[in-house]
Amino acid sequence: MIDTDFKTTVTEWFKGLQDRICGALEETDGKGTFLEDAWHRPGGGGGRTRIIGQGNILEKGGVGFSAVYGKTPAKILAALGLDEADFYATGVSIVMHPHSPMVPIIHMNVRYFEMSNGVSWFGGGIDLTPHYVDEADARHFHGRLKAMCDAHHPTYYPQFKAWADDYFYIKHREETRGIGGIFFDRLMAGEGFTAEDRFRFVQGVGESFAPLYTYFMRKNSPLPYGEREKEWQMVRRGRYVEFNLVYDKGTKFGLDTDGRTESILMSLPPQAQWHYNYPTESGSREDHTLRLLRKGIAWT
Amino acid sequence: MIDTDFKTTVTEWFKGLQDRICGALEETDGKGTFLEDAWHRPGGGGGRTRIIGQGNILEKGGVGFSAVYGKTPAKILAALGLDEADFYATGVSIVMHPHSPMVPIIHMNVRYFEMSNGVSWFGGGIDLTPHYVDEADARHFHGRLKAMCDAHHPTYYPQFKAWADDYFYIKHREETRGIGGIFFDRLMAGEGFTAEDRFRFVQGVGESFAPLYTYFMRKNSPLPYGEREKEWQMVRRGRYVEFNLVYDKGTKFGLDTDGRTESILMSLPPQAQWHYNYPTESGSREDHTLRLLRKGIAWT
Repeated sequence: MIDTDFKTTVTEWFKGLQDRICGALEETDGKGTFLEDAWHRPGGGGGRTRIIGQGNILEKGGVGFSAVYGKTPAKILAALGLDEADFYATGVSIVMHPHSPMVPIIHMNVRYFEMSNGVSWFGGGIDLTPHYVDEADARHFHGRLKAMCDAHHPTYYPQFKAWADDYFYIKHREETRGIGGIFFDRLMAGEGFTAEDRFRFVQGVGESFAPLYTYFMRKNSPLPYGEREKEWQMVRRGRYVEFNLVYDKGTKFGLDTDGRTESILMSLPPQAQWHYNYPTESGSREDHTLRLLRKGIAWT
Repeated sequence: MIDTDFKTTVTEWFKGLQDRICGALEETDGKGTFLEDAWHRPGGGGGRTRIIGQGNILEKGGVGFSAVYGKTPAKILAALGLDEADFYATGVSIVMHPHSPMVPIIHMNVRYFEMSNGVSWFGGGIDLTPHYVDEADARHFHGRLKAMCDAHHPTYYPQFKAWADDYFYIKHREETRGIGGIFFDRLMAGEGFTAEDRFRFVQGVGESFAPLYTYFMRKNSPLPYGEREKEWQMVRRGRYVEFNLVYDKGTKFGLDTDGRTESILMSLPPQAQWHYNYPTESGSREDHTLRLLRKGIAWT
């Protein structure tokens, strides 16, 4: 039995999270401001897509909030082996592409899904895609995520770190998208957890975004770079496009079910490049990065 | 019963086609030259991927030939409802991205597939993706394709033109990729056609490529353009990436079955851009183009 106010509590909290994150990013960027595009979904609900561009640090990014409801799409019902039911889904999704190749791309998502038959769960994650992998940065990122997870349950970090390694994987390149992070889905009440426990964890994930990313914005944006690093950034952005369009389940599901295309594809970079057989010199920083785009690296 | 020499005849003809097309493109470009990357497939066979870059007219493009064989992948067998069998597949694939937004992107593929159980077919197509749709160019392109098809069978052009409209469709954008062309698959012997008839048609398709595309290279590369047209080209190239990574069956199949990634993704543009909600002014040339990226336009 779902508390009928629970989804409203979650929804309002997600809305506030969007506000707080946009505020923190604008403040750290110092120039870029978010423009809001409010939209309605014909079948029920809508969202507030907020886009930032041409900031001091951020070149293109989006922080989306949505709360949609209606008849559950046939694809979900079939996947769950369920009969017709109404659904309610709310979440916050973020991708940031910085100007500087020394500042990593970041992605975060927190979401809540509920059906009229009583099934409900949380999902989400946060992962970092540095154009150049810096080991100290990777340890910092994973260390903070681990501490946040550990405050909720000792199994969370090891389980969700491995899940992120498997999820954010570009099979045809035999590369992970970046250095991973955490990823989780279908976190339900049960096995000693209440829905409120799960929600508190998801709140922890959401609140970890702004301090983590503004840390990298501040620390890495002053680092020098040149043409070579810029070109490598474009190649890595190409890989980001490949992951999102070929593998990302949220993107595929959104496009398959007539989701709002501009909101789904706000994750794509401002530009990307593809070179045939892009060469990387053995021992170079690019080569070093490729060697670290692997599953199963213990960063903590 | 398949003539055991037939696949060799087809293969050798495809090889020669690759040579002739590369020669015609180099001659018309006047500067770019193809670099060959010969590769072997662990399971059997291999290919010659030829890449051109930084020409006078062509910015990035590839003309690939391959002839591969071995155990038929489980996915194909399942799709066909067949038991274990060996396969042989050979083909030529081309995508060209020009520097100028006034010169269209072009794609062509011709392929032959044969299994040890006697099943065999041809597939392929040729389609044009102008960054700016010019009606006279579209009529020229479709007119030449229709004349070529009509020389083989009166049903070919109407059937394969409609097939291209349906195939080269970006559902989430509600746009066709370009102005289409022809697309066909599983053209077998039977219904009054011999395998040799089908092959003669596929030869017609292959030989139509060089005169068609060098015509647009010569005619459109002198046309003036500026920053605005260049940005629009980047946006249209983004759509090309979306089609190839989200919908193209050859790309998906290749990536799914551990095909050679660099050869499969040689179709991607040198650069692309994504803007949130890219604005097009009503009545502009960009808007005019979007209105013509529709299925079912009778260009002949």
